[in-house]
Amino acid sequence: MADRLQQQLEFILEIDRLKTVRRRNQLADGSRRENSAEHSWHLALMAVLLVEHAAEPINLKQVVEMLLVHDLVEIDAGDTFAFDEAAKADQADRERAAAQRLFAMLPDDQASRLREAWEAFEAGSSPEARFAHAIDRAAPLLLNHASGGLSWREAGVTAEMATERQRPSETAAPALWQEILVRIESARQRGDLA
Amino acid sequence: MADRLQQQLEFILEIDRLKTVRRRNQLADGSRRENSAEHSWHLALMAVLLVEHAAEPINLKQVVEMLLVHDLVEIDAGDTFAFDEAAKADQADRERAAAQRLFAMLPDDQASRLREAWEAFEAGSSPEARFAHAIDRAAPLLLNHASGGLSWREAGVTAEMATERQRPSETAAPALWQEILVRIESARQRGDLA
Repeated sequence: MADRLQQQLEFILEIDRLKTVRRRNQLADGSRRENSAEHSWHLALMAVLLVEHAAEPINLKQVVEMLLVHDLVEIDAGDTFAFDEAAKADQADRERAAAQRLFAMLPDDQASRLREAWEAFEAGSSPEARFAHAIDRAAPLLLNHASGGLSWREAGVTAEMATERQRPSETAAPALWQEILVRIESARQRGDLA
Repeated sequence: MADRLQQQLEFILEIDRLKTVRRRNQLADGSRRENSAEHSWHLALMAVLLVEHAAEPINLKQVVEMLLVHDLVEIDAGDTFAFDEAAKADQADRERAAAQRLFAMLPDDQASRLREAWEAFEAGSSPEARFAHAIDRAAPLLLNHASGGLSWREAGVTAEMATERQRPSETAAPALWQEILVRIESARQRGDLA
């Protein structure tokens, strides 16, 4: 048990680096870009609050754990902007190498458990993963809408691009999808989305 | 359901402000102070990894939800430094007022649920809350130890003060407590703790 705890504490210090991974979108108040650790916190709490809107019965504990770990690979691979097609080309390879290194720091059983949570999220292969995708994509949309579309303007994102990005919620959380469409339309009318 | 979702989305935007609440301690790499949202993410994942070291059987889902919400009151009340006795004098009043305002933004059932999670944490009245306390206090110690004691030096914290602060782990997670004592002793020998 002492060896396990040493490994766990080393991993816990290593993942502190997720706090220094910058995402493209800004906070709601537009004061700075968001980092991937605080984003993960926001998603986990969103899942707790919005689970009643999931289209299928889901295991909330699984969703929360998935959201807590889903961005850890960015510690090595960096955040890949949703609308950067060039960076997305080798994203999967970079993230797989990161998962290999990071999760191996943990005791085998926990390495497997976290890796499986991450892989399930990536594959979108369960109701939990599909709901997690919807939440992961809704969060930056809500922040972008609140901040006057700062990162949308910066990257020339169109209403069509933003809508396509939000497709996971259409089937995983239909009520949320309707609210998202309302916000995309108001952003388009304000000129925040091209 | 549409009204509920509106309230939930407003609350989700409001709590984005936790990302702008600065704590006293630095990140492990000493590059900047930590904020309360990324701290909450770190604690939730620490709980997932360290639950096997809890002295009593605990419900991990409850611990994780408690850790995700435990600092929300800081949105209004600010972070209170553990070793600032003056600020701690009216901390409870400031935080109670914050809880009153914030949780009331949610539908009644969710307001009650989050408020109960926060109150249980504050009271330390369940095995889950006591384990959550141990984690909440261990995290900044690990970061302080990694950063060369930046915030300890700044505030003239002694090894005795740091040890007292970590008492929750002595009974809630004895193996973790032992690792904490090792780190406090090494920090004292290096002069990071007075």
